[in-house]
Amino acid sequence: MIATTQQNMTTELDLGSSDGPPRNWKGIGIAMVVILAVMSLVILSVIILTPESLLLRHSHVTMDDLESNTFKVHDPCVSWLNNEVALRTREGHVLTFSLTNNRTTTLLDNSSLVFSQSFTASYAIYSVANDLLELDPPEREKAELQYASWGPQGNQLAFVFDGNIYYKPNVTSKPLRLTSTDKQLNIVNGLSDWTYEEVLLTYPANWWSVDGARLAYLSINNSATPMMEIPHFIGGLYPSNVLYHYPKAGSSIPSVSLFVVNLYGPAHTLEMMPPLDSLRADSYISMVTWISSTRLAVRWLNRAQNQSVLCVCEATTGACSEDVPLFTSDGSLFYTVLPAKQGARGEFHHIAGLTAQQTAIPSVPPRFLTSGSWDVSSLCALDEKAGKYFLSTEESRQSRHLYSVELYGVFQRHCITCNLIDGCSFFKAIFSPNQTHFTLYCLPGIPKVTVHITKDPSYVILEDNSPLSRALENKRLPETLFRTLSAENHLHLKLSLPQNYESNLHPLLVIDGLPGSQSVTEEFALGWPEVLCSTQGVALAWVDGRSGVGRGQKTGILDPRKLGSLRVKDYLGVVLLMQLPYIDDRRIALYGKAFGGYLTLKMLTATDKLFQCAAAVAPITDFRLYAAFSERYLGHPAKEEHAYSTASLLEEVNKLKEENFLILHGTADRVHFQHSAELLSRLVKVEANYSLQLYPDEGHILRESRSVQHFQRTVVNYLQSCLKHSTLPDPIEEEEE
Amino acid sequence: MIATTQQNMTTELDLGSSDGPPRNWKGIGIAMVVILAVMSLVILSVIILTPESLLLRHSHVTMDDLESNTFKVHDPCVSWLNNEVALRTREGHVLTFSLTNNRTTTLLDNSSLVFSQSFTASYAIYSVANDLLELDPPEREKAELQYASWGPQGNQLAFVFDGNIYYKPNVTSKPLRLTSTDKQLNIVNGLSDWTYEEVLLTYPANWWSVDGARLAYLSINNSATPMMEIPHFIGGLYPSNVLYHYPKAGSSIPSVSLFVVNLYGPAHTLEMMPPLDSLRADSYISMVTWISSTRLAVRWLNRAQNQSVLCVCEATTGACSEDVPLFTSDGSLFYTVLPAKQGARGEFHHIAGLTAQQTAIPSVPPRFLTSGSWDVSSLCALDEKAGKYFLSTEESRQSRHLYSVELYGVFQRHCITCNLIDGCSFFKAIFSPNQTHFTLYCLPGIPKVTVHITKDPSYVILEDNSPLSRALENKRLPETLFRTLSAENHLHLKLSLPQNYESNLHPLLVIDGLPGSQSVTEEFALGWPEVLCSTQGVALAWVDGRSGVGRGQKTGILDPRKLGSLRVKDYLGVVLLMQLPYIDDRRIALYGKAFGGYLTLKMLTATDKLFQCAAAVAPITDFRLYAAFSERYLGHPAKEEHAYSTASLLEEVNKLKEENFLILHGTADRVHFQHSAELLSRLVKVEANYSLQLYPDEGHILRESRSVQHFQRTVVNYLQSCLKHSTLPDPIEEEEE
Repeated sequence: MIATTQQNMTTELDLGSSDGPPRNWKGIGIAMVVILAVMSLVILSVIILTPESLLLRHSHVTMDDLESNTFKVHDPCVSWLNNEVALRTREGHVLTFSLTNNRTTTLLDNSSLVFSQSFTASYAIYSVANDLLELDPPEREKAELQYASWGPQGNQLAFVFDGNIYYKPNVTSKPLRLTSTDKQLNIVNGLSDWTYEEVLLTYPANWWSVDGARLAYLSINNSATPMMEIPHFIGGLYPSNVLYHYPKAGSSIPSVSLFVVNLYGPAHTLEMMPPLDSLRADSYISMVTWISSTRLAVRWLNRAQNQSVLCVCEATTGACSEDVPLFTSDGSLFYTVLPAKQGARGEFHHIAGLTAQQTAIPSVPPRFLTSGSWDVSSLCALDEKAGKYFLSTEESRQSRHLYSVELYGVFQRHCITCNLIDGCSFFKAIFSPNQTHFTLYCLPGIPKVTVHITKDPSYVILEDNSPLSRALENKRLPETLFRTLSAENHLHLKLSLPQNYESNLHPLLVIDGLPGSQSVTEEFALGWPEVLCSTQGVALAWVDGRSGVGRGQKTGILDPRKLGSLRVKDYLGVVLLMQLPYIDDRRIALYGKAFGGYLTLKMLTATDKLFQCAAAVAPITDFRLYAAFSERYLGHPAKEEHAYSTASLLEEVNKLKEENFLILHGTADRVHFQHSAELLSRLVKVEANYSLQLYPDEGHILRESRSVQHFQRTVVNYLQSCLKHSTLPDPIEEEEE
Repeated sequence: MIATTQQNMTTELDLGSSDGPPRNWKGIGIAMVVILAVMSLVILSVIILTPESLLLRHSHVTMDDLESNTFKVHDPCVSWLNNEVALRTREGHVLTFSLTNNRTTTLLDNSSLVFSQSFTASYAIYSVANDLLELDPPEREKAELQYASWGPQGNQLAFVFDGNIYYKPNVTSKPLRLTSTDKQLNIVNGLSDWTYEEVLLTYPANWWSVDGARLAYLSINNSATPMMEIPHFIGGLYPSNVLYHYPKAGSSIPSVSLFVVNLYGPAHTLEMMPPLDSLRADSYISMVTWISSTRLAVRWLNRAQNQSVLCVCEATTGACSEDVPLFTSDGSLFYTVLPAKQGARGEFHHIAGLTAQQTAIPSVPPRFLTSGSWDVSSLCALDEKAGKYFLSTEESRQSRHLYSVELYGVFQRHCITCNLIDGCSFFKAIFSPNQTHFTLYCLPGIPKVTVHITKDPSYVILEDNSPLSRALENKRLPETLFRTLSAENHLHLKLSLPQNYESNLHPLLVIDGLPGSQSVTEEFALGWPEVLCSTQGVALAWVDGRSGVGRGQKTGILDPRKLGSLRVKDYLGVVLLMQLPYIDDRRIALYGKAFGGYLTLKMLTATDKLFQCAAAVAPITDFRLYAAFSERYLGHPAKEEHAYSTASLLEEVNKLKEENFLILHGTADRVHFQHSAELLSRLVKVEANYSLQLYPDEGHILRESRSVQHFQRTVVNYLQSCLKHSTLPDPIEEEEE
């Protein structure tokens, strides 16, 4: 729904006609007044005597609500097209909204074929005006492409087929093959393999220079990486298993090279050479960014992930140097986010400008534009005049506001989103290519998406999720509190509590996030945990432990080998420290997924019937079976055998014997089902008391909506019934059972 | 334990010395009499007034009992070595027992390496006297053999390595390679592949002629059979999947040929040619037996398994003919078991003598040596003078007695085992090579193994499982009843009931057997169902439906396409017909494995909350996913699409939505986990209420004893808690829930 901010509704009421015989209006009036007075007294007394009744008008949020379309947040998937934004409506139409004249045009209606950047090899079709053209490499018709994307200039585009990159200067021109590696050699160009999806966190591994003259891309060679086989059970007469390159801890990781290809004129490709020979093998490239039309900033990372080298590469020569200054297009400064010591409070992320001075004296510290005991969570845009835009946690740890900082003088900061939109304190911002506009995703409360002009307080609402707003008006939603439990340990807690929570004792569910991510935020959340809170009165706690954002580099400040045990300690800290009067500490349950699933079970092994029950989704049970990049926590398994053994759940399975837990796992999960299989075979041996739920052929994120529903209901029913009554021994009357 | 039958124990009691002062013996005597009389009255009244107390002295059989060694039946694995029997003792020693002098010699003690015919490729080592020689093919040392066995003459032996058969005329001679097919071509000689293990029901697929001069063997070619991949999760960094040839319904089945190789003199191999060209491809060989030193009886079976051809093959020429008479060694008669019409009572299995007369007039019916409405269940031995020995159900359907029948005159029958050993009515018999002796496995009650001389009532006990006897003396064991519910449908029922069953209402567990096998027998049984009966008072019912033994050829008399639905009807018949006053028909549960698991779930779909719950182990959920030989039930899937769809559970998953059931499956089960995976993915979609238990890397028969324990306890706990209270709607007060 697109609407400008000022919108008025006039209600026209028909007050009725009056053409009957004359009445004793006075008598009727008095009678009415008396009746009304008595009735309002009755109603008032009812309201006063049963204050709960007011609340009861608000119904619980149920699983049925959650599964209905009304309660779904609609993400319009806004993307910038120069001076237009393209978005998808709730109904599935794709529209463009012009910033110059505020007009909306339908690009595709929901019956058309939709431009799809298909993730797993499938065809990509694009529609420009009314033409439908198929994207194919010259050697094959109706080919299944792996990826396609527009370049920044005109209609230039690139696509990937069979691991090779193809380039079309415009829609109608013949595609030009840019790489020619044999797929049999297990090399993929311009796209992430499994490992790089986890390292770069994106599927595309190619970067257009702003002028569209060059394309940088990774070439990822998996010829030495062992293969993982995932059984696929469903749909075929014979199961069709899927093989892919997956380096487990200690195994060969893919070798990676960065190339830049010239697109204007005859194609000409150069490899960007890492500045140190030690980075040529057994290393990762974790960041690639164009900083001018011929220069790239590139970050190489050693295998152990404890040394990273940030370089500037000259696309015209392929030379990279870590000593070379980082220049912007005009040759002055390159900005990045680096950890900075803030006195005794530890390290926080701040914007650093790296200048030519670093050439002469490499040890000179970078110049920081921001400081304080808060984090810059992301850099959004750089406007040479207006300054740098960034999101930060300055207002509060759980908020995200958009700020601009001047690039000169005292680096004055200005909060753009503080008090901009009512009820919004957690923003995501996406700037237009020319940085004159930006879209905001406003959270918490009901997610809203708005378009703004830089330095102009007016805005246009692209999506306000009003159906959801209306649906939630009459719902009894949890109340959210933020707590910091121990300043020393930086234990940040988000509590979602049932309304009127202080009048009762509530069971507690502790939900674990991922290491390195922050779960204690003000982001809007409406999922099965909130249903559990609303309908069953279960208090919810999210904990950010030592590894949370807001504490310097992801892996910077704690001994990574102790991550698991420290987190367990943190969590136990929550339980022991909290002692909130409205929490029933004999009814505490745990929930976690992947690493969180690991922690959840690890906490059961570390305690003795302290928790009523636990649900672990796709838990990591042994880090030896997990990906090579998990070596950053525990080191190389050949050298750190003891650390891996200590961390493993498989060797502590005896301690799970008396605990009550549920394991859920998709058999095609990227945290391989192997983890649960190894655990199950040991649980069988000790006759542990567990429940199991399998999702055949489902991955880490459940694909089928029916699987999602089943998953949610399974978890909710399990936790609900286990939290109903405590079966744990009474801490006072010990050994009563 | 070896002991002769007559064994007397003399008890020597010390009656005490009498060297004290003289006493008033009369007074003491009277007092004693009075005291004794009063005490016995008290005891008597206690016994009379609380008859249960007597029972209570007998304790329940528990799961702990079941898992202790005392309660395990020891099978001495008796095998004949001419005039000796070799057996393994309870302690693991391998002994030989001489029939000539009744003396026992230790062949190997339990610390030695034990002769092992290893099933899955592993080395075979044999010990003769004190020598230890390794069996290896000439081309490889310390090879992992697939199989090794002694020939009938001297020390000749054969073994299989890499799919080829090797022959050693004696222990010290060099092995001679008899076949030379490339393993890469997917051909195996002399051993069953997966398919033939199911068809022949034995791993070896080679047969020595009695004089040791020839070896017949199957050559099984799987080059056209599709491969099935079984994921193996446990133990490795990367899961190591196992591939094997598995023809699913409708897929290419292995092609098979029968060869005979001459062992004396230069090795010379001839293929036995099937008499009909139609049997050259897409057929099975289901039986091979030497009937003289140069002739074999061979049964070919077409793919649909509705036509079988029994032939005699001439090993010296390779010619086989179905018209040629079946001769014994002296050229007179060949005996086999064939179905014979017994008036209106249907077909029963009886011994047929096939003579030369069948040559001239092939349509002349065979001459039957036995007749009656009972079955010859197996032929054991042929003594030209004493007659033919066989096991039959003549005494009762659930018994097996050893009989001899004269081969002349009125074919007089004589029961050898009737009243031979106290409490034994279900026998297995294994004759010595020269047929002068036989061993008997005596069941039910405590299994005993005895050695007998033909025509001599005396015998020697090789194993009487006395520790088990003693252990069971004080246990409250179920009482077993046999019932035939409907003469028309031949519904045979075995009921195991808790002691004093008539005084109470009991829940009922219906246990399904395999199609074509008989589960209603007097065989000794002590497993988790008996524990459920003993400790929880659950009545157990085994049902033999239409396809049970005792009803002609396995697939002879019913429309195989309806097998599933007929069995469901039979089972429902049990429930509805039975109406036993001591059964609570609102607490009935089902249990079944493989095909039984299929039936169990099928019965849930066919009813509406009739059953309280069900446990299905490794259920077949769609016959399209099952082996090609299941085509005998439903035909070829390409032609019988409707039959497969009707039989499938996957298309009826909606009817399972409201039912309560447990699925258990080993992920390496030969009824592939794929069956459960397909079912689970559909159950997830309809949000069915089921429980799941997985056994990673376990097969159809659980390998690890811990897995077995876990399996049994899981099933018992599940059934126990579900049968405790009925949750089904009361049939009278409907819709009460």
